[in-house]
Formats: sequence, structure tokens, C-alpha cells
Amino acid sequence: MFLPKLIDEDIVRWLKEDIPYWDVTTVLLPETKKESKARIIAKQEGIIAGLPIVKRIFEFAGVNFVAKIKEGDKVSKKTVIATVIGDIKSLLQIERIALNVLGRLSGIATTTDKMVALARKHNPNIKICATRKVIPGFAKYDKYAITIGGGDTHRFNLSDMVLIKENHLRFFDSVSEAIQIAKEKTSFSKKIEIEVQNEEQALEATKSAADIVMLDNFPPVQAKIVAKKIKEINKNILVELSGNITLENIESFPLQYVDLISSGSLTHSVRNFDLTMLIE
Amino acid sequence: MFLPKLIDEDIVRWLKEDIPYWDVTTVLLPETKKESKARIIAKQEGIIAGLPIVKRIFEFAGVNFVAKIKEGDKVSKKTVIATVIGDIKSLLQIERIALNVLGRLSGIATTTDKMVALARKHNPNIKICATRKVIPGFAKYDKYAITIGGGDTHRFNLSDMVLIKENHLRFFDSVSEAIQIAKEKTSFSKKIEIEVQNEEQALEATKSAADIVMLDNFPPVQAKIVAKKIKEINKNILVELSGNITLENIESFPLQYVDLISSGSLTHSVRNFDLTMLIE
Amino acid sequence: MFLPKLIDEDIVRWLKEDIPYWDVTTVLLPETKKESKARIIAKQEGIIAGLPIVKRIFEFAGVNFVAKIKEGDKVSKKTVIATVIGDIKSLLQIERIALNVLGRLSGIATTTDKMVALARKHNPNIKICATRKVIPGFAKYDKYAITIGGGDTHRFNLSDMVLIKENHLRFFDSVSEAIQIAKEKTSFSKKIEIEVQNEEQALEATKSAADIVMLDNFPPVQAKIVAKKIKEINKNILVELSGNITLENIESFPLQYVDLISSGSLTHSVRNFDLTMLIE
Amino acid sequence: MFLPKLIDEDIVRWLKEDIPYWDVTTVLLPETKKESKARIIAKQEGIIAGLPIVKRIFEFAGVNFVAKIKEGDKVSKKTVIATVIGDIKSLLQIERIALNVLGRLSGIATTTDKMVALARKHNPNIKICATRKVIPGFAKYDKYAITIGGGDTHRFNLSDMVLIKENHLRFFDSVSEAIQIAKEKTSFSKKIEIEVQNEEQALEATKSAADIVMLDNFPPVQAKIVAKKIKEINKNILVELSGNITLENIESFPLQYVDLISSGSLTHSVRNFDLTMLIE
Amino acid sequence: MFLPKLIDEDIVRWLKEDIPYWDVTTVLLPETKKESKARIIAKQEGIIAGLPIVKRIFEFAGVNFVAKIKEGDKVSKKTVIATVIGDIKSLLQIERIALNVLGRLSGIATTTDKMVALARKHNPNIKICATRKVIPGFAKYDKYAITIGGGDTHRFNLSDMVLIKENHLRFFDSVSEAIQIAKEKTSFSKKIEIEVQNEEQALEATKSAADIVMLDNFPPVQAKIVAKKIKEINKNILVELSGNITLENIESFPLQYVDLISSGSLTHSVRNFDLTMLIE
Amino acid sequence: MFLPKLIDEDIVRWLKEDIPYWDVTTVLLPETKKESKARIIAKQEGIIAGLPIVKRIFEFAGVNFVAKIKEGDKVSKKTVIATVIGDIKSLLQIERIALNVLGRLSGIATTTDKMVALARKHNPNIKICATRKVIPGFAKYDKYAITIGGGDTHRFNLSDMVLIKENHLRFFDSVSEAIQIAKEKTSFSKKIEIEVQNEEQALEATKSAADIVMLDNFPPVQAKIVAKKIKEINKNILVELSGNITLENIESFPLQYVDLISSGSLTHSVRNFDLTMLIE
Repeated sequence: MFLPKLIDEDIVRWLKEDIPYWDVTTVLLPETKKESKARIIAKQEGIIAGLPIVKRIFEFAGVNFVAKIKEGDKVSKKTVIATVIGDIKSLLQIERIALNVLGRLSGIATTTDKMVALARKHNPNIKICATRKVIPGFAKYDKYAITIGGGDTHRFNLSDMVLIKENHLRFFDSVSEAIQIAKEKTSFSKKIEIEVQNEEQALEATKSAADIVMLDNFPPVQAKIVAKKIKEINKNILVELSGNITLENIESFPLQYVDLISSGSLTHSVRNFDLTMLIE
Repeated sequence: MFLPKLIDEDIVRWLKEDIPYWDVTTVLLPETKKESKARIIAKQEGIIAGLPIVKRIFEFAGVNFVAKIKEGDKVSKKTVIATVIGDIKSLLQIERIALNVLGRLSGIATTTDKMVALARKHNPNIKICATRKVIPGFAKYDKYAITIGGGDTHRFNLSDMVLIKENHLRFFDSVSEAIQIAKEKTSFSKKIEIEVQNEEQALEATKSAADIVMLDNFPPVQAKIVAKKIKEINKNILVELSGNITLENIESFPLQYVDLISSGSLTHSVRNFDLTMLIE
Repeated sequence: MFLPKLIDEDIVRWLKEDIPYWDVTTVLLPETKKESKARIIAKQEGIIAGLPIVKRIFEFAGVNFVAKIKEGDKVSKKTVIATVIGDIKSLLQIERIALNVLGRLSGIATTTDKMVALARKHNPNIKICATRKVIPGFAKYDKYAITIGGGDTHRFNLSDMVLIKENHLRFFDSVSEAIQIAKEKTSFSKKIEIEVQNEEQALEATKSAADIVMLDNFPPVQAKIVAKKIKEINKNILVELSGNITLENIESFPLQYVDLISSGSLTHSVRNFDLTMLIE
Repeated sequence: MFLPKLIDEDIVRWLKEDIPYWDVTTVLLPETKKESKARIIAKQEGIIAGLPIVKRIFEFAGVNFVAKIKEGDKVSKKTVIATVIGDIKSLLQIERIALNVLGRLSGIATTTDKMVALARKHNPNIKICATRKVIPGFAKYDKYAITIGGGDTHRFNLSDMVLIKENHLRFFDSVSEAIQIAKEKTSFSKKIEIEVQNEEQALEATKSAADIVMLDNFPPVQAKIVAKKIKEINKNILVELSGNITLENIESFPLQYVDLISSGSLTHSVRNFDLTMLIE
Repeated sequence: MFLPKLIDEDIVRWLKEDIPYWDVTTVLLPETKKESKARIIAKQEGIIAGLPIVKRIFEFAGVNFVAKIKEGDKVSKKTVIATVIGDIKSLLQIERIALNVLGRLSGIATTTDKMVALARKHNPNIKICATRKVIPGFAKYDKYAITIGGGDTHRFNLSDMVLIKENHLRFFDSVSEAIQIAKEKTSFSKKIEIEVQNEEQALEATKSAADIVMLDNFPPVQAKIVAKKIKEINKNILVELSGNITLENIESFPLQYVDLISSGSLTHSVRNFDLTMLIE
Repeated sequence: MFLPKLIDEDIVRWLKEDIPYWDVTTVLLPETKKESKARIIAKQEGIIAGLPIVKRIFEFAGVNFVAKIKEGDKVSKKTVIATVIGDIKSLLQIERIALNVLGRLSGIATTTDKMVALARKHNPNIKICATRKVIPGFAKYDKYAITIGGGDTHRFNLSDMVLIKENHLRFFDSVSEAIQIAKEKTSFSKKIEIEVQNEEQALEATKSAADIVMLDNFPPVQAKIVAKKIKEINKNILVELSGNITLENIESFPLQYVDLISSGSLTHSVRNFDLTMLIE
């Protein structure tokens, strides 16, 4: 999915942060020609994401990396995820960065997968979407992990899609004016989404034919009513629900009436996937 | 704490990630000379961290930022954290990055503060420490948030302090040999810590006069016994407890017998601090 | 449109390329406290694009820049575009880079504007679109100039929209399979376009409900027939014509039957806009 | 000519611009172990420039590149320029950047070659020279293409040679003073050129022994007279003609009396070389 | 000691500085398939430092590098340090940068080694330390060369250790207050050193249990008296002497009474190690 | 001489090297609104170089810098070079980098000035030249300091001038062939220098009209004989002497017969200029 060499610039930055001069511990190890072998092992159940990136990190340090499972596989506790073989000093310098990446991305994928499973019990076509609430500088990888977990990236960034939010809307006379101007000024190649605060706005957006209407912080009951009305007017418009939806509360929302659920918690409050690396 | 211009390189990177070409939504807004004003408001209780960084982000976009509280203050729900005034287009382009930084750092500080408070009920001198389980590329800010929450950064990186872990130890004949070599080869300017797996190693490390002995994944009862023995031998040696210690379980550990508690969860499983920006 | 400080990284790169050590000519000038004033003057008729970028370049060198026209204005020969005032040594070091940017972007905007005018004589709603045939490293600015000339950027880059081209299609069983997979695997936030080589593919794409169907190198007569058929099946599908369409030959295409014309020549074979800077 | 790894920094920048997250189209292709093969084919006659750079771009993505012609060769329509073999997803992600580079550089080389041929009919020793009117950030490659087309780079940048232009001259009392100061203050390692506006200045520059005298925008007749006078005074001084000289009008200039013709159009108004990549 | 790929970013920067466009001399050489071989030869006696870095520089250019001695070996005049084999054009482009690095680092190591030898005649446990008086941008390599010469790096940078100097001290009420605050606010992972100007301060620092006390510019006689008093109070406190100590004058200091000697001259006034590269 | 903002990229790099996280010492200082003032004072006699760069460093940290002397002035011991006023924490973080730059550049300028003075006693027109034996990454500043000391930069880098050295010459049939090819293939904008090993080569180079002939490691007597012969044949050819010429031995060379002396020691074995910063 990523051209391997395009990840290198990030790897250099990550490693320079962790080794600004040199690793004062591994320099103490005796010189040896013998290669060391280690296994990366899951300490919990879940979905593994980030193998191609972690492979590149190990290779960056001259360490051979062999994945024992496939990207996106569900593993159980004690599953061997990968083996790595190489110079022990390189291996130990790179270990923490690699596990930090794998732990975060697998954590995101695991929670996404759970949320998808819960939501699809109610609506097999629903999509669980990320937001832009990612770690600055790490967005590409956070979004990637969402897809591995079965989720939808939503727009990557501000250049990707028009999304007229409440703070934009106050500078237009009306919802319909905002959508009208967006359609005139925006490239044909981009979709137009609008975030609405109430039923009136939602229906106006629908009539103006936005591509996606986001119901922002609607209580579940009202969300259901409005989503149905939108679909009755134009079934091609996608309806997105947003606002503090988490793994814990998702089933309280009218999942069978909407197309998209977006959840900031997937990336802004990640629960790290528990991993360890054991040297043999 | 940071030279403001040294943050800019990160800000550029974060913004280019989020605006690789241009923001296709804010370009739709009408031109106006009038400045807009917005307030950043807490939606939960906790410790705010990251104000100097967020100030720099807004100023980077030409937006004036005035903090209404001090870095590290404890706020309650609805507290106004800061006001920002400036061109609405700049403000809206920068909003998400700023809130992402402030939300993460305040989240880290808030949890750290809680963990410090819990631990100090038992031992007023104990330090709650971070680990290197941070987001790659974001370590400087994660570590900073720990200090604002009243925690200890632990070593910043691999160049900072010697920390001989289990994976290093297997390449030495003994704990004492490892410490001996570290003392010979390491700059006088650095401390030497060793991670041990059992009492025997712990006492050997103590006799070899490591600066810090880390009891790795010791059950609470054993941790207490070993910590006491270390202190009886040499009260100047710092004792660190480590291994899946979290806000939830910290009080089950023998806090009054140790100097340092390190917890990866402080940075690898952050709960974002809930914030919003409201335009007036 | 651009956050000014986000342009600086490019300006540094451009200037370091042109002044790797120092300017060996301006160091010869006598020291003076007196500021110099210069005017940037059009030597041809056309649309000016790039003023905000050029303003930033001059300001980068501490030179004051005052635009005398608005971005996107049509100027005639001898129009004063801007005045600049500042230290003569800074001004002369920066002059060439500034004019190179302004000349290229205004050249792109001028040709785009002409092509839009020609096409809209036949179809007032048609859009003239760029391609990805831009200068590597300069895409953001090339695309921007297209919009100033009244054109459509088309997708910014490969992360922006799905565009299934002939070289992709050979790896699918059929047009409809390709579109089906795209719809399943792609984020809801992105449109799906397909390039087709013949009528059969075009109609299959239409029935599969691609968002945009691009008729690649269709002869004008055939393009007209196919475009009409597409619209009869689904009037919401956008039809794009592509393949060596230039300012010279555009009127030979069935402009009233299609929505989009894309032309690589707008950015890959730019005619520079003729400008000069005169010191008073 | 270039150390291959020194091109990589540019390649990374070019690719990140075109793939800021990932290519949303090639991810749709089915996984395959089979390598794909493609040919890069000329669609017009001309000189090919840029093969070493394009080779490095393909190799950057792990694709094997075999040139079928030599750098600088003249090709005719349908000539196979190179074959590439590799993973189809990598190949398709890299294709556009590679063709953009090859198309621009071959376009520059082709026009340069034509202008050299025209000029040398009149003066076998004349040199066709580039200017600094290049694309910012792409100067190294633009200048390189000039040499492949048989032209002269002129100075690379402002650190390379002294060139006193009209805008500098106004800060000196006279042409001779300017040249005198340049000789005193400039490193022995650099040549000194001066741009003159009239015969008087030209002869003063000659007597002051500038290395090169550039006749700026002289009408052909006057250029001939002045060039002859310069050579009569000092045949070692090089005479350069400059000012809107293009492929179309070059033969109207007194080519047999001058040493150098410089033409901004070679790089600021490039006609792209038409190429295609066909997958087998 | 360094991950090889982490050196590459520096190599790119060094080479771009020396070859901003291309090497106009080596392009003149005839094409050849034949590889050239050269030897790098010492022209003086001393310690060689920098082989892993220089190896990486040559490999960066595709040139094979085989060290004939080990890093840190003492060589005599005419010793062959390494042989390099590869394309002559690459080899000649890279030669100067490689020799500049090897010459500086070996120069530092050679002087350090001499100073260590002199000092250890008087005190076999004394450490000769660098300072932060390095070349900006080259600190990592300067510090590394110190270790190869048998010296101590001292702190790498300002994030590494607390060092309270005279200019800091004036902002505290007393030496003991400064040390007290440092102990409270600083991470357990860092040592605390204080620079003192007189005996009174030195003893106060000793009683406050700073980890290291630096006697700044103390005359030898006084240094001896104060060092002895410090050790009598607390033998675990390290005593550092600093202030214009050089290879020439080091033996005039009371070396047997102190632990550490720091000398800025080791890195700020380096005598280059004389080397040459001969092509066979 | 430098555009101030073009220095910033280097300053950022230098500071990040010295403050990878934050300065753990200055964070201990109490907060104060009061600005601190300091003076930078010479502790030796010599030429000061680097003021514009150091000014930029202090301003980068928000500290006001006022030079009390002019760039290139000769100062005596205790001369106040500049005063700086600003926030004490910023000032102390930046101090060392600033002094490192000023110390090195003034050291280079001081030695250059001495060598120029010595040589001009014998030949008032002789130029003392640098070489490419600079610190990698610091070349621009090292070369700049040479000019402030009254020296000549020689070529900046490999793209600047042709210099055919012994290692190149072995790939040509003869000196004259090498020069002939250089004249054919090199841009008119560059000079051509050749390094020769004996009289025969020197005279052949002279007859081939190289711009500069460098006598490499010629003994003084032979250098004088050959230099005279070159000048008799063509007085316009510059003669350069090179090979271990230092401040100590320069007067033993035939200075009145040559134009240029180049000395690697000026930059590869710099004696730092002794400076201090005193806070008032």
C-alpha cells in the first residue's frame, strides 16, 4: 500500500528522535558475528496492523523481518506475529520504535474491527469512519490502521473533500447558499459534505443535494427521524452520524437508518495493543 | 520551555500533512476584513498542557492567542482555556491541529496528575514516570506533558542514560559484569539503570552499585520484599517498579517502598482531553 | 488560499538552489541605507496569477510588496502589476525567483482563461481541467494557477480520487467489476472515475454508475455519440473528454455534449507570461 | 553525471506531493506475484534527456529500468526508449512522475538541439545558452537537459559567476568602475560578465576587460556593428546576445559575429516531449 | 555505533553542499567500465577515527571500502588505512568529503589520546572530557571521535544533564538553593553538575551533594586544595577541572586529585590529521 | 551578504542538535519579566567574523543583538564585540552555539589576515586562498570567514570551476588533451584550472592556455623558476602555489612570482578565537 522507500523519511525522523547521538546501552554489548533471533508476540487478542511498516523499520536497521501472519489477521494471546533475525545491537536499537508503531496501529485496528462488528449486527452496509482527530505527523498511519480494521478513512485531510461545518456555516446566509457556492467553486473531483445541527438544516441540505449530510450530535431518536426523512427525499444522499460515538455507546444509535458513523475516539483515545519481543 | 521557533519545524510538518494542497472548504468563505473571535473551552475536568505549543500554532497562522489559564492549571468543565482572534480562514484551517495537540497533551497530563495524586497518598516522595512508549515523532511533546502533569520524564531517549534490560543482560556473564562494563565505558555524565527479573539479580545489582534498579513485572508482595532489601543494603539506590501499572491498579503496588513507578499507559494509551472551539 | 508560512519551505528551497553560497554580484554594490523601489510590469496581455506567493517571496527577503492589481485580473501590456520597495541587495537577489514564479503561473492562468472562454462559447457550463502532467515539486502552484484562470484542478494527486485508467483496467475482468470493487473498497469520501477506450466500455461504466466517465482519445464524432448515450442513461454522470486537446483544436470537439475537458498542455507545455522588473 | 543517491531526495519530494497518503486506485488491483512489463515509447521525434534520472525513479519504486537508447540520442516517433519490469502497483504509482520528468527534459533537449543546429549553420563555434529562467526547485535538471541538447548551461546560479546587469549598474558611477570593483573583490576563480545597453557601454566594458560582454536586446544590425568593434579591440572577450531570442527568430540575429546566444524560452516556455508508457 | 542509514542524511547534506549541481571536472573524464582502486594513506602518526562513517560515505557513492586497520588503531606515517574500489567518477566526487571527515575525526582522536596518556601518567583513573565547544551541526561526530581517542564525551547536549554554570547561578540565592531546586525539578535519570568559582561555593556544592563539582579556572594550587577538601567531605562526588587546559599545559594541573579534566581545545581548535588518497 | 532567513535552516539544525528535547538546566531558573543584558568580549587580539550570523542566532531566540564593532574589525583583548539583551532563559540556551560560530569564524579570519599581511610584504597583489578542506556542512561559513580575513574563497565547490588534479590527469593522454577537452565541454561561464606536478606539465598547461596553473608541492626554488617561465609565455595565466603552506612557512615560498597561495590549514586546522559572554 505504501512504497517502502516513502516510509523511510518517517523512520529516519523517528529514529533520530530516539537516538540523537548514539545508544549508550547497546555500545556496551560485546562484538559478535552471530546473529540473534527474536519473536514478536501478541499479549492480547485482536487485529494486527502495521506489518509492512514495521518490516521496513527492521530492514532499515539491516534486520531481517518475517511476518508469521498476514496484515489484518486476527490473533489470539501468544500468537507469534513475526520473527526477526540480525545483529543484536541493531535489533535492540530499533525494537522500541517498531513496537510503538505496531502497538498503536494494531490497537486502532482492533477497536475499529470491534466497532464494525457491533454496528454491522444492525446494518450490514454501515461504515465506521475515522475523523481528523489523529496524532499530528502520524495521520497517514492512523488512517491506514482504520482501513485494516475494516473502517473507512473518511477524508484524509483538508484538501480532500469539502466539509462545511457549523463554524463555516455562520459565514453563509443559509445551508442552501453554502452548498450552492461549494458546487460552483469546487472541483468536480471532490464530494461535498455538510454538517447540520437540526432537522431544518438537514432537509435544506438534502434538497440542495449535498453528497453527504452529517447529523452532528443528534440525540438517537431525532437522528432516526431525520435520517428517514432525508432518505425519503433522496435515497442517494449519504447520512453520517457523529458526536462522541464510541465502542461503548454505538448500539444506542439508529444504525439501521444511516450510512456512516464517525468516531474520533478510534484515533484520539487509542488503547495500545499489547506486544512483546522475546530474544531467543 | 521550548524556544518558540524550534517548534515551527514540527508545525510545518503537521500542517502540510493536513493541507497538502489547500483547504477546499475555507476557500468557499466570503472575503472579509473583520476578525473573528473564538474561545477554546474544556468539556471535562482535568489538567491543561500544551498552551505554549498551541499558542505557537495559532501564531504560525497569524492568529492571536490569549491563554485564560496557566499551563498546568486544573480546569473544570466549561472553563474557557483561551481566546483566539484572527482571520477566520486561517483560524479554521489551524483549529483541528491545535485541538489535536492540546487534547492529547492535556489528556496525558490529566492522567499523570491523577496517578501522582493516588501514589502520593501512600508515599509523598514517589515519582510517576513515563517510558519510551510514546508516539514516534511526538516524543518531545509526550514527555513534556508528563512533566506538566507532575510526572517524571524518565530518560528522553537511548542517548540519555544507560538502561540494561533483560534483552541486553543475556549478552553478559552476570548482572555485576554488565554494571561493571557500563561504569567503565560510559560517560561520567550518565546514570546507569538495570532492569532485573528476580531477587538475586536485584541484590547483585545493588551490590554493584547501579544508580537505579528496576524491578520488572514483580508481583506486589515480592516487590516489597526486594525493595526493602535493596534499601537496607544501600539507601541511595533508587528502586523503580515497572510492568503494566495503570491508574486502575497502582494502589495494589507497595508504593511506600519504592522511589519510582513507570507506566507505559500514560503515553501509549492516552485518553484524549475533551475540548471544543466555539466561534462567537 | 495558502497559509503564508507554509510557502516558506518552498521559498527556502528555491533560494538555496539559486544562492547556494552567496550572490557574488550583489556583494559588489556599495552599502546604502536608501531603499530602492521597483515596479513589476506586464509585457503582454493576460491573466496574472501568483501574487500572494510572490508577495511572500519578497517579504521573505525583507522587501515590501504592494500589488497594484488583484489576483486573477486581466492586464494589458505595460500594466504595473506591483511595486516593491526595500534594500537593493535583497531585492536583486530575489528578483529572478519571483519573476520565474509569476511568469509561469500567469502563463498557465492566461492560457486556461483563453481555453475556458473558447469552450464556454459552446457550453456555458463546461469545465476546463488540468491533469497530473505538472512539474514535479511544483504541482500545488500549477494547480492553483489553473483555478485562477477559471479552470478546474481535477484531482490534486493519487490520494484524492479513484481514476481507473487503461493500465489498471487490464487487471480486472471487466469495467463493471472494476467499478464494483472500487465502490466496495474506497472511502465514501472519494469519487470514482473511469477512463474508457470505446463505446462499449463507456456504456458499461455508465450502467455501473461511475461518478465520471472519461472518453480517452475519442474522435470528436464518436465522442459526441457516446456522450449523448451516457447522458440518456444517467444524466448525473459527468462526461470528460481527454487526449491532446489544446487551445488550438478545442473547438473541434463536441463541447456542448460533455461536462469536462482535460488538457495536459495547460501545465506541461506552458508559455511563460512576459514580465519585467524596473528599478526606478 | 549525478550521483544516483543524490537524486533520491528530490524523488521523495516529488512522490510525496503526488501520493501524500496512498494511491487510492492501485490499492484496488488484485495481488499478484507476476511482474508486469511496460515500454516507454516516443510519440514524436527529438532528443531524449533524463534517462539516468528516470531510471533512478523506477528503481526507487523497485522497478527494473532498461534503457533501449542512449542519453541524448535522437529518436523518431514510435521508438522504444526503455522497458520497465516490476510489480504493477509500484509501476503505476511511479509512472506519471517519471514521464513528467522525461517529457520536460526531452522537450528542453529537443528544442535546444534544434536551436543549436540552426545557429551552427551560420557559425560552427557558437554556443546556445540557457538562462536562470528555470522552474524554481528544478534548476539542476533544466540545466542538465540543456547540455544534453548540446547547449551551454550559462551560470548555474548567483554564486557561480559575476553578471552585472542594468539594475546593478545604476549603483556604480560607470561601466569601468563596476568592472574594476568586480575584479578587485571577486575570487580569481570566477568570471566577470557585464550586460550593456548600448555601444558606448559595450566598448567601455571591452576596454575594462570584462570576460564576457552581453548585448542586451540590441537590434540585429546594431548587434553586428558592436560585436565587430568589441572583437577588433580584444578578440578574447566573449560576446553574448540576449533578449527574446527563440527558435523562430534566431536566424535574424548576426550569429557569425558573436560567441553566445542566450534564450530564456529554452526553459521558461518548454514544449513537452510526447511520450507514453504501454503495459504489455 | 551508528546505524549506517542514520548517517545518510548527513552525507546527503555534505554532498549537496559540495556538488550543488554537478561536478564540472569529473564529467570530463572518458567513460570506462574499468574500476579504479585507491589507497587512503596516513601522512603522520596518530589514532584513526571515523572509519565507519567514511565507509558509509564511499558506499553512498557505490564505491567499495575496505578498512585495513581497526577503528581507533594507532598508525604510523605511510600506513595504508583503507582501500577503495569503484567507478572513478564517483570516487573522485566523494574523495574530499571523506578525507575531510576522516582528517578531522582522526585529528581529534589523536590529540585526545595524547592528552589521556599524559594525564594517566599522574592518575590512571582520570578522564579527559570534551565540552560543547564543537562545530555546530557536527557535534555527534566530534563527540564520537573523543571516545575513539579514549576520552569522555561529557554531556552530549543541553537535554542530557544539568550543568549549573556561573551565568545560571546568579539567578539563585545560593549554590545550595540551586542544587536543591535542581534535585526537585529534574528527572531522576539525570545527573546534576555545578560549576563553582571559589572554595566556598565548592564546599557548599559538596554539602548539597551535587553529583559533580566543576572547578572553573582554578589556579593549580587552589584546585588541589579544594579538590582534596571535597573528597574528604564526600568521596563519591566527582571533581572536574576546567578552563584553558590543553595538551601543552595539562601536566601543570593537580591531576592526581581530580576525576575529570575537560578541554574545549580538543574540538574547537582541532589539528587536522594529515591523509592522502592515491589512485593506483 | 546572506539573506537572514536563509541562515535559519542552519540555525534550526544546530539548535536541535544541542537541544533535542529541552534544556534541563535553564528550566530551573525562576520566571522573570526582567530582561538580562550580556556582553560578548574578546579574550585575544584578532579579526572578528560572523557578526551577521550570530546576530541572526540571537534574534532567532528573541534576543536583541547590538554589534559594537563592524564585521572584519581588528579587536584587542577585552574589546566588547556586542551586547545582547533579552529573556535570560533564551539567552543561555543560545549562548554556546553563538560563541561556537563566532569563535570559529573569527579564528579563521584572524589567521587569514595574518597570512595575507605576511605575504603582501613580499607581493602586494598576491591572494591567500582557501581550499575545499572545510568542515562538511559548514563550508558556506568557513568560506565566508576567509573573505572577512582578506582571503580569496577559491572555488566554493565542485560545480563552480574546473580543477583538473593529478587523479584526473591520469585518465587523459596529456595535459594538453585534458585542457582541450575541458575547453570544449565546459560552460563558457567557468574557469579552467590544472594542477601540475613538474615543469614540463606546467609549460604544457601554459601553452594550452589554462586559466590557472597550480604548482602542487613544488619546492620553493623550482616553484620560482617555473612561475617565471609561465609568466614569460603568457602573463595572463594565474599561477597558484599549493601544498602544506602555513602561517609558519609561507615566507619561504617565492611569493613575488606567483598570484595565488592556497592553504588548507586555514580551515582544516582552525585555532578558535577566544571569546566570552558575561552577564551583567
